[in-house]
Amino acid sequence: MDNPFLVEVLRGELVESRHRGSVSVIDADGATVLSIGDVERHVFPRSAVKALQALPLVESGIADKYGLTDDEIALACASHSGEPAHAAAAASMLAKAGRDVACLECGTHWPMGDAAARALAAKGKSPSALHNNCSGKHAGFICLACGVNEDPAGYVKAGHKVQQTVRAALEDITGSSHTDEEQGIDGCSIPTYAIPLPALAFGFARFGTGAGLSRACQEAARRIRQAVAKHPFMVAGTDRFDTKLMELLGERAFVKVGAEGVYCATFPELGYGVALKADDGSTRAAEAMMAGLVLHFLSLRDEERAAVEALAQPVIKNWNGIEVGRYRVAPDLLQ
Amino acid sequence: MDNPFLVEVLRGELVESRHRGSVSVIDADGATVLSIGDVERHVFPRSAVKALQALPLVESGIADKYGLTDDEIALACASHSGEPAHAAAAASMLAKAGRDVACLECGTHWPMGDAAARALAAKGKSPSALHNNCSGKHAGFICLACGVNEDPAGYVKAGHKVQQTVRAALEDITGSSHTDEEQGIDGCSIPTYAIPLPALAFGFARFGTGAGLSRACQEAARRIRQAVAKHPFMVAGTDRFDTKLMELLGERAFVKVGAEGVYCATFPELGYGVALKADDGSTRAAEAMMAGLVLHFLSLRDEERAAVEALAQPVIKNWNGIEVGRYRVAPDLLQ
Repeated sequence: MDNPFLVEVLRGELVESRHRGSVSVIDADGATVLSIGDVERHVFPRSAVKALQALPLVESGIADKYGLTDDEIALACASHSGEPAHAAAAASMLAKAGRDVACLECGTHWPMGDAAARALAAKGKSPSALHNNCSGKHAGFICLACGVNEDPAGYVKAGHKVQQTVRAALEDITGSSHTDEEQGIDGCSIPTYAIPLPALAFGFARFGTGAGLSRACQEAARRIRQAVAKHPFMVAGTDRFDTKLMELLGERAFVKVGAEGVYCATFPELGYGVALKADDGSTRAAEAMMAGLVLHFLSLRDEERAAVEALAQPVIKNWNGIEVGRYRVAPDLLQ
Repeated sequence: MDNPFLVEVLRGELVESRHRGSVSVIDADGATVLSIGDVERHVFPRSAVKALQALPLVESGIADKYGLTDDEIALACASHSGEPAHAAAAASMLAKAGRDVACLECGTHWPMGDAAARALAAKGKSPSALHNNCSGKHAGFICLACGVNEDPAGYVKAGHKVQQTVRAALEDITGSSHTDEEQGIDGCSIPTYAIPLPALAFGFARFGTGAGLSRACQEAARRIRQAVAKHPFMVAGTDRFDTKLMELLGERAFVKVGAEGVYCATFPELGYGVALKADDGSTRAAEAMMAGLVLHFLSLRDEERAAVEALAQPVIKNWNGIEVGRYRVAPDLLQ
């Protein structure tokens, strides 16, 4: 099945590039609200499920045991830009578990945010694993291990208790088995399991509503959503899509990017979960698709609508600030 | 017409993302050697035609008048990474025409190369227009204007003599009219004209062989190809695809990336020109496609083949250096 064109990138009035994709929107009963393209194809959710991966940390009471703050819980769900506040919060989480940066097994890279990388270089510094965009999630994993007196060493491996716990939490909320055959290794070295978009969307419908979850898991999901809504900077960073959208809409839309063009979201007031993928792995396309769905589903005030429209169908300016093109989202998503 | 999948990106053994595209390979007589996908769709060549845009500078004798060196001629064809040698050569070209950075109308951005951007920041400096990846092309345009005592001011505009000269050179070598209706504005503010891939490929077949060109244009094409083959660093930069491929193959393959997934090339020994586009605008896909075509068409020694194979179907490693996936190029391109 050929997925349809969902985002076009225009230069002048000509279509220069085109992105195909698939979209699944599911309600908390598991019913299909919207389905576009081949949604049965299994997709690695990558970082789009970090909030679900953080559920055991909160549900277990370990987040409270260590006194994790809301901005730290938001960081546990983040693909952050490696700005100073992100690195500091990751260090604080580790310190609360009696650990430090040496425990992180995510690897080191320069801050994902170009300006943050240059700012670090301008100070004559090099990055540490705290700057890895996944450091908050990994600090959460280390808290999860230490909270039950488990040695965190090797916590990224599929056989470690941390990953077994996280895998079970993902299977529970998505209702989809996570098989060894469909296991890949993520950029930060933890396992990632390919499942269909509707299962991911169903998981996010439940994350957004609590439907069908234990009381403790409901509370954990609510706490995570509220923490991110209060600290949208911590989940991404300066000028990032997720931060801008959640600064605008607060708890009305929880959205999270994953690598290779995956996006997940929940719109709690509607009881919907969303999962989508750009076939080609493009983040620009996935962002435009997600913003289109926000326009499609949520009632927005005029100024909110204008701000989300600018995320869905941005004008493209060149290095001299001249308008040279724009994005166009497929009507199926937008209207 | 749906373009076929030409590059797949695997995580573990599962296909995570897929890129469609179209390819045209044309010989110097204009005959089709290879055609994949919808090649009649008009494509903005963007920076992939910089070498053709540099023809008037050399053909007119102005490059010699100003004593431009081979590395400067290579820079005139470059989408460079903004490393110190690139910025210095652009400044030198401008000085030879009695001008300086203030004349550049390409706009300013941080070096395209992340390491170069951080190195600049580490020195406490900000970028100038010399760091714009197009600064060499623009310095060449300014030389072209000054060489005939034309005021370079406004040289980026379609109505300026520089752009009229460049447009005529592109129309001549590609045999394809460049219409106002299919004019877009490029990232560096000059016009870019959408034409079909076979016309682009034909232009590069002639650029590689001189067939059907005036003696002066033949000489200019040869000089540009040799200059780039001698200075492949100047046309791109550290760890860049074009630099690596031409360091390996010298004059046997002239290749040049453009924005939004466009690539052009010529293999002079075969008399072929190549033009391709990844539908979604992805550079990673366009690079893999081009490397696949090099493997397809050129006879290579074992070590050369292994090096090009690593560009076509690279292994993907994560931040810990663990192998997590790989690229797979469609057999149509590769074999």
